[in-house]
Amino acid sequence: MPAQTFKSEPEFVAWLRRIAPTRRGRLRLGIGDDAALLAVARGQELILTTDLSIEGIHFLPSLHPPRAVGHRALARSLSDIAAMGGTPRFALVSLAISRRTSRRWVEEFYAGLNRLAGQFGTVIVGGDTALVPDRIAIDVIVCGEVPAGRALRRSGARPGDQIFVSGCLGLSALGLELLRGQGGTRAGRRSRRWTAEALCAHLYPTPQCELGRFLSGRGLASALIDVSDGLSTDLAHLCAASGVGAWIGEELIPKPAAPSTRDLQESDRLALALHGGEDYQLLFTVPRRKVRQVPRAFQGIPLHWIGVIWVSKRLELLRADGTHRRLEPGGWDHFRSPKG
Amino acid sequence: MPAQTFKSEPEFVAWLRRIAPTRRGRLRLGIGDDAALLAVARGQELILTTDLSIEGIHFLPSLHPPRAVGHRALARSLSDIAAMGGTPRFALVSLAISRRTSRRWVEEFYAGLNRLAGQFGTVIVGGDTALVPDRIAIDVIVCGEVPAGRALRRSGARPGDQIFVSGCLGLSALGLELLRGQGGTRAGRRSRRWTAEALCAHLYPTPQCELGRFLSGRGLASALIDVSDGLSTDLAHLCAASGVGAWIGEELIPKPAAPSTRDLQESDRLALALHGGEDYQLLFTVPRRKVRQVPRAFQGIPLHWIGVIWVSKRLELLRADGTHRRLEPGGWDHFRSPKG
Repeated sequence: MPAQTFKSEPEFVAWLRRIAPTRRGRLRLGIGDDAALLAVARGQELILTTDLSIEGIHFLPSLHPPRAVGHRALARSLSDIAAMGGTPRFALVSLAISRRTSRRWVEEFYAGLNRLAGQFGTVIVGGDTALVPDRIAIDVIVCGEVPAGRALRRSGARPGDQIFVSGCLGLSALGLELLRGQGGTRAGRRSRRWTAEALCAHLYPTPQCELGRFLSGRGLASALIDVSDGLSTDLAHLCAASGVGAWIGEELIPKPAAPSTRDLQESDRLALALHGGEDYQLLFTVPRRKVRQVPRAFQGIPLHWIGVIWVSKRLELLRADGTHRRLEPGGWDHFRSPKG
Repeated sequence: MPAQTFKSEPEFVAWLRRIAPTRRGRLRLGIGDDAALLAVARGQELILTTDLSIEGIHFLPSLHPPRAVGHRALARSLSDIAAMGGTPRFALVSLAISRRTSRRWVEEFYAGLNRLAGQFGTVIVGGDTALVPDRIAIDVIVCGEVPAGRALRRSGARPGDQIFVSGCLGLSALGLELLRGQGGTRAGRRSRRWTAEALCAHLYPTPQCELGRFLSGRGLASALIDVSDGLSTDLAHLCAASGVGAWIGEELIPKPAAPSTRDLQESDRLALALHGGEDYQLLFTVPRRKVRQVPRAFQGIPLHWIGVIWVSKRLELLRADGTHRRLEPGGWDHFRSPKG
């Protein structure tokens, strides 16, 4: 990244917020959260979100089948709706197709996208198309709804709130490693199940819209974000928006299971869970008095307690032996080098 | 375009409509018009539209200053809202910045975009960002509103309806030619005014939202589309959606003026007006009994009568000498070669 541009995504977003017109009107929440929130109908707020998927940056044709590219492109935006506690309704798809793209690729792409849209009751209502010489670029816009005043933001966490995360973290990043052939080559029969789980988590992630709606409907969570860029990065986003810090326990973080340490070292499992992105699980904080209302699992997805919000603005990782270290955001930053 | 992909944009859009989920619910109008139409609030319908602007396809860094790139990227989507007779309210901006892009470019881009947004009372509420190795890609999403049942579609034209177009056509395409140095090099003092007009029309086009609202508010137009791809192409879109044909008069089409034929041949003026896109003027049809209610000009923009809708599905161009020829769509097709 040349020095004259923006150094990081937070810097860019902060600049965008500074220069954005100040007129707010029916705008409830603008640049900087998972999605924008607009008051349009009485009793309901509209959620608008958009996510880019670019060949070579967000997917690789050599690794990602077109059906998975379509699924993942929509899942990114659906997960933003989940992270507001809303229900997705409509989607627009902007697709810049490369001259090299076959009709079969386009058909498979839409098959993956439409199947996920159907599962979530989301109707594709329009979009735009272009033909480009090189890489495919996709932008998926989702329009959702949430009852007025019920949307969950990143900014509501308060000191003393307990931190929870759904499902397993790092599984998608492990799936990507396996796709790249960087793991599991020696995998025996008992390894097949976790290999398949990791591959599916990467290629066909499930946005947690039901869980998001449960948390907002019950008024359980004080802040909510989806884990799209990795726990370390998304926890930093949530804490920055709330003006707080956090302590989380190394042992408490749900890491990818492996049949043996031959398949995956303990330190790798932790790194995957801390910094691997694209799991689209939900990270949320709960005020202490409501913690007993959080179920152990929601519709089969375990909800893990992983730490506590702290008044000091630092993120600390507590080890089992009682020592601790500072947790640096090590996940995805749209302005740093692509994972490619 | 390789043979195994889609041959033209209409073919692709027809395929998209076939495979799109059939659930309609609160979807009033889906893929195929200028924008999607959704019933969200009582008495109001929501308009959603999205437009890609890609470096080398929709703009060239060597010709288009970043301020104009930002202006034009938003203008495309605002014009889609105008073409539904709606009022733009909110916008999302997805921006894939190239590694070569300077901070100054990004600042100027947003300056152009925000100025136009401010003029139209549109608030930028979010978006997405990515860093790519090569060309810049922009997707601008605009969310607008229209009173329920008032939106103007492409599909309402009926045989006998009169065809009108606002402003001057081909001015933007002329501006692009001038930018490329393909015209006006010998231009004297008296040519300066039309040179400047054409350049401004290309770099800083004005979406006709007020006119669109006027037409829908008064219930004047039976069908409406914006001239973004060129008159010949957009008239074909409107006629195809309405299941009709059209006769238009060569002499009636508003063509770019030129101080002398040395600057611009008569045949070039006609070709620019017929096939040059990106003027963002409005093309609309009016039932015969309402024609007398159409003013000669609206807020200083002349409204030209150019022809009549016909029951036969052909587009015919009538010459001053009484002969006629078939009008082939010669404008922009997102699936054919870029104008670049």
